Amino acid sequence: MNIATGALDRMAAIVGPKGLSTDPDRLAPWLSDWRGRYHGAAAALVEPATTEEVSQIVRTAAAHKIPIVPQGGNSGMVGGATPDASGKAILLSLRRLNRIREVNPAAKLAVCDAGVILQHLHEELVKSGQRFPLTLGGKGSATIGGLVSTNAGGTQVLRHGTMRALVAGLEAVLPDGSIYHGLTALKKDNRGYDLKQLLIGGEGTIGIVTGVTVKTVPALIDRCVVWVGLDSPEQAFELLQFLSARAGAHLEGFEILPESCAASVMTHIPGVRRPLEGRHPWYALAELVRDCADGPDPQALSEQLMADAMERGLAHDAAISANEAQAENCWKIRDSIAEAERASGPALQHDIGVPVEKMAAFITSASPVVEARFPGTAVAAFGHLGDGNVHFHVKAPPGETKAWMDAQAGSISALVYDLVTREGGSISAEHGIGQNKLSELARLSDPAHLMALRAIKTAFDPDNLFNPGKLVPLA
Amino acid sequence: MNIATGALDRMAAIVGPKGLSTDPDRLAPWLSDWRGRYHGAAAALVEPATTEEVSQIVRTAAAHKIPIVPQGGNSGMVGGATPDASGKAILLSLRRLNRIREVNPAAKLAVCDAGVILQHLHEELVKSGQRFPLTLGGKGSATIGGLVSTNAGGTQVLRHGTMRALVAGLEAVLPDGSIYHGLTALKKDNRGYDLKQLLIGGEGTIGIVTGVTVKTVPALIDRCVVWVGLDSPEQAFELLQFLSARAGAHLEGFEILPESCAASVMTHIPGVRRPLEGRHPWYALAELVRDCADGPDPQALSEQLMADAMERGLAHDAAISANEAQAENCWKIRDSIAEAERASGPALQHDIGVPVEKMAAFITSASPVVEARFPGTAVAAFGHLGDGNVHFHVKAPPGETKAWMDAQAGSISALVYDLVTREGGSISAEHGIGQNKLSELARLSDPAHLMALRAIKTAFDPDNLFNPGKLVPLA
Repeated sequence: MNIATGALDRMAAIVGPKGLSTDPDRLAPWLSDWRGRYHGAAAALVEPATTEEVSQIVRTAAAHKIPIVPQGGNSGMVGGATPDASGKAILLSLRRLNRIREVNPAAKLAVCDAGVILQHLHEELVKSGQRFPLTLGGKGSATIGGLVSTNAGGTQVLRHGTMRALVAGLEAVLPDGSIYHGLTALKKDNRGYDLKQLLIGGEGTIGIVTGVTVKTVPALIDRCVVWVGLDSPEQAFELLQFLSARAGAHLEGFEILPESCAASVMTHIPGVRRPLEGRHPWYALAELVRDCADGPDPQALSEQLMADAMERGLAHDAAISANEAQAENCWKIRDSIAEAERASGPALQHDIGVPVEKMAAFITSASPVVEARFPGTAVAAFGHLGDGNVHFHVKAPPGETKAWMDAQAGSISALVYDLVTREGGSISAEHGIGQNKLSELARLSDPAHLMALRAIKTAFDPDNLFNPGKLVPLA
Repeated sequence: MNIATGALDRMAAIVGPKGLSTDPDRLAPWLSDWRGRYHGAAAALVEPATTEEVSQIVRTAAAHKIPIVPQGGNSGMVGGATPDASGKAILLSLRRLNRIREVNPAAKLAVCDAGVILQHLHEELVKSGQRFPLTLGGKGSATIGGLVSTNAGGTQVLRHGTMRALVAGLEAVLPDGSIYHGLTALKKDNRGYDLKQLLIGGEGTIGIVTGVTVKTVPALIDRCVVWVGLDSPEQAFELLQFLSARAGAHLEGFEILPESCAASVMTHIPGVRRPLEGRHPWYALAELVRDCADGPDPQALSEQLMADAMERGLAHDAAISANEAQAENCWKIRDSIAEAERASGPALQHDIGVPVEKMAAFITSASPVVEARFPGTAVAAFGHLGDGNVHFHVKAPPGETKAWMDAQAGSISALVYDLVTREGGSISAEHGIGQNKLSELARLSDPAHLMALRAIKTAFDPDNLFNPGKLVPLA
């Protein structure tokens, strides 16, 4: 026990017997991240059930200078919810804050506790003809509060934006224990700096999100998925431009993958079929949807668009989904790439962003640079071309082990991030910084940006008690 | 002269002879706001021509502890760009930073100096088939930097959002003179707190915006404006819900006004005609557009929608524009309300926001409360129903003078703002705080919000030199 027993007793009194544990077995699953890359220790697992309890826990911790690591579904990618090894911090789980407080279809809003799991929100909204247009692989465990705190992305950002665009209001506990009451959704509000915007993507370093008002959109009436065979990322981008100009208001997603990823999926993932018979160097997946009654039929629209696109040489071949099963099959291929790549051998992931119009050229030019510098490696870049964000995987040479990869990881990633930074890009497009990218952020940031990060962190949390060692490279 | 001559000499050396003036005649037009409500003094008018010059001016001012009041087109509504009466500050005009640096239709982006005038950007984008979907009455003088710093709104927010949604990148000079290089547009970027978001709506209190990357959208192919006669704001909101569900992706704007505003416009504004023969208690203006080639024809869509809406009792009568002149006539009525109201007698304006779905009920319930408390006054609420934002004018009793209005202003506004705050609303939906609403912001803010405003301001600008006395009610 590293912290005053008095403080833990006080916290136990606040949250009740179900809300605090120091049992190592109970803590263990939450002290490592889900991929097993980060491991930490904590003095206790504290699980408040209300915003008021979170506030009181924060006040108590602040009085005793106890660090707090907030945690949602523990499904992050950068170790942002894993405490350090000191054991001084408490792990503050938001998972008992799991109530959907309100669904308001007329206002196209829903109000959730921070601990509501994404999939539960999806299911709840179906009942009222609405949907929440953000989804990702971890939807069965990721919480709304965690999605806010990491400004999550996913495959619908093209049309609906990241979490930042989908948050209409927030409630949060600040480092002094005060509660920020910002749940009321106002489409226009110019009463000073927008605190919401700092908390979104703030990784719990200046405030703990306890409640969220999210924007919803009408449920889909129907959709159509097009799977296109292409020569190159550049051709994919031309196709995207064409589809946007012709039917941008109905284009819900646009993803790309190389043949190597498709082959991995076919090898390692059961139950998927290739949408096209032939092989192509690259594929694009485009989804066209109808979500207002007077919009065009997505099936007819897709057929017309692809006929025109092929006539203009913007695609080699295309499969247009004729039913939901075919549409789902396309998405399953896309969504299984990460899992298939993990099964196929050691690889190093990079979640990178560059300006949308530069991403195709970046993939084409950066991949051989990396492969030449680290002979035998192979790049697989796939994902959200329409958002200027791909997952840039560098695969170990055939036969090499994870140990080889671990030894090379620092130099490979530094090269990738240097190339990205040269294009004005981001070393973290959607996963965040956490502890994983802290030193690279310090190395590669614009000095004014770094100064601003530090100034904001220090202004809100002068004692550095909120998720210390994450997001902000303190001097 | 209140400040060290040495400092002004140093600044003159930075900006050259055209860039600094202490001539009272040259300064005079910029020391009052355009409506003549706020008056101040300044030691000099400084007009840098480059971002680097802004940086050097800021460093020099910081070294001498000289306050800086940044100014764009001086077309704001809340005295945010008017210095105080002390004469200690320099007035830093961004108007010589007036270059459109890049237009990139493929990326749907344009990069502008902060001093570019909105109308110039509109005109420039036409040449490449793009448009910038934000417009407002002051477009002939408002600058892009000012629009960013006030998070401007206007009549296209329904579909495209406020300035916050349209900024893809920013360049700014921080209070220590360092330059934040954030112009590169990244659709996804999770490298820590988003400094852009603090600068948007920051009224120049923590950074001076020098460059902006804005998002553009395709030029309109065609549009149709519908002018609808209605019973009440509630019926207008029902109609809006109907139009959104049926054709939300094509609905560009939705505004309302009462008959009294329409009558004022007809009396005071030449060259407009009533779109409908009959009189109705309320009117709505809806604009339906086509901006991608495969979208529905707005004329046919409008006709179908309004036939269905009238069948459902959602409207009494409707005029559907058959050509651009008719569409323009409808918008001219809407855009002339403020001018017509000014001509018709003393009135007190309030730029208020409540949740979108509550605005109709707010207008209906709050108007008689105000009129009863101040007998003889009449409320005219008009504007952006689809954004939960109306301009809530309280008109003086017939025959009363501006002096009467000035004497009552404090109590009338306090009542309006109390009613708004009771609904969780905003006392400034789109105009900002400036100096006009500073004390009301302090009186009515959530304490945690107020604490956050002060913490951020102090962290960036500990000496309170950037636009002092604006936006942030310091303790």
